[in-house]
Amino acid sequence: MSGRLITLEGGEGAGKSTVLAHVQQQLAAAGVVPLLTREPGGTSAGEAIRQLLLDPAYRGLCAESELLLMFAARAQLVREVIRPALGAGRWVLSDRFTDASFAYQGGGRGQPIERIADLEHWAADDLRPDLTLLLDLPVAQGLARAGARGAADRIEQEQADFFERVRTAYRARAAAQPQRFRLIDASQPLSAVLQQVAAAIDAFLQRSLPA
Amino acid sequence: MSGRLITLEGGEGAGKSTVLAHVQQQLAAAGVVPLLTREPGGTSAGEAIRQLLLDPAYRGLCAESELLLMFAARAQLVREVIRPALGAGRWVLSDRFTDASFAYQGGGRGQPIERIADLEHWAADDLRPDLTLLLDLPVAQGLARAGARGAADRIEQEQADFFERVRTAYRARAAAQPQRFRLIDASQPLSAVLQQVAAAIDAFLQRSLPA
Ligand SMILES: Nc1ncnc2c1ncn2[C@@H]1O[C@H](COP(=O)(O)OP(=O)(O)O)[C@@H](O)[C@H]1O
Ligand SMILES: Nc1ncnc2c1ncn2[C@@H]1O[C@H](COP(=O)(O)OP(=O)(O)O)[C@@H](O)[C@H]1O
Ligand SMILES: [Mg+2]
Ligand SMILES: [Mg+2]
Repeated sequence: MSGRLITLEGGEGAGKSTVLAHVQQQLAAAGVVPLLTREPGGTSAGEAIRQLLLDPAYRGLCAESELLLMFAARAQLVREVIRPALGAGRWVLSDRFTDASFAYQGGGRGQPIERIADLEHWAADDLRPDLTLLLDLPVAQGLARAGARGAADRIEQEQADFFERVRTAYRARAAAQPQRFRLIDASQPLSAVLQQVAAAIDAFLQRSLPA
Repeated sequence: MSGRLITLEGGEGAGKSTVLAHVQQQLAAAGVVPLLTREPGGTSAGEAIRQLLLDPAYRGLCAESELLLMFAARAQLVREVIRPALGAGRWVLSDRFTDASFAYQGGGRGQPIERIADLEHWAADDLRPDLTLLLDLPVAQGLARAGARGAADRIEQEQADFFERVRTAYRARAAAQPQRFRLIDASQPLSAVLQQVAAAIDAFLQRSLPA
């Protein structure tokens, strides 16, 4: 059996990390122990790049640098971790992936879509997720949840209109690629979110595993 | 008077840093106090990226990541430092610039020229030097000079054939753009190198300064 790449996407406080743990258990229960990773990061160089990207000290970082750093981390993650794992038949579960660049650096920062698509092609080795769960909720609600978590990083310090553009870009991507995306209403109570997620994963497992 | 960008290029131990100090003095004596910078680096984010790029701990860094990190530092340097300085009429003197990516990430690592040219276009804001001094010398001679300097960084740890490809790429670029490049035989004694450099700078000043 070949591996699969499942990604979790959504704004700050949408519940990605919370949901990830449940998806991991559900997959493991189905006999598929996934490799977990996160973006930006997931490799030693990538985690160093993540620190740089999130450090409020670099408030003046230009949009081009931010985009290039995101893909520098991603290029390494794809080659060092994800491709080898998929090649060995492992499933991979990632907390964010390239869709986040289309949403944050594209929608949020206004970097052209074609530029990001070009980087996806050569830097991320054209790797696309097999399934993406988009946890969608109103910006204010997500920020309220994330705010309870502690000091805001450089990107979390952005204004509400930035996050509105991120949300809009995420939703547009999900609408344009309905086969790959599952849109989850993340404003619901956690139990309802987890139920919707479990159903999506279950359907995906049925499609993917040999009978 | 508008500013000018002068860059110093060449392999390890070619004498860039040594020559830079002399060019700085020559320009200042002509009434043009230049802003000095270096690549990768030159901004707070860029210096953090430089550390990451040169750290031998990241030996497994893929060529794509390396290229993206170089341009992440450069994008920030151009927007935060060089463009504003040039716009204010300052001259800028840089220890390496985009030619180094064509030589190291292109020639050395085999990244396609078109990919680098595309990054030069949008990440480096299409900024080209007005004058580039290429300090050229046999690889072994440069490595012997650089070796005396201390522990080798991640890129200095490459093999001789890597540096041969870097040298070849540098020379090809200089040959293709003779108006911008001055090829300096850096294998000569320092006094002869400095004389050749001084003549090139003098000619450039005569072209650039109002009579
Ligand atoms: N559906 C939900 N309803 C209420 N709170 C939630 C829900 N999902 C997650 N949370 C809480 O919101 C906060 C942010 O969740 P987290 O999983 O860290 O989000 P993300 O990783 O997307 O930023 C956490 O405190 C989490 O317990
Ligand atoms: N023409 C030269 N002849 C002999 N030694 C030189 C010459 N130019 C530079 N050096 C010495 O070589 C070493 C490397 O020079 P440096 O300016 O640091 O090179 P780079 O900055 O290009 O790596 C230094 O010790 C420097 O003094
Ligand atoms: Mg999280
Ligand atoms: Mg030097």
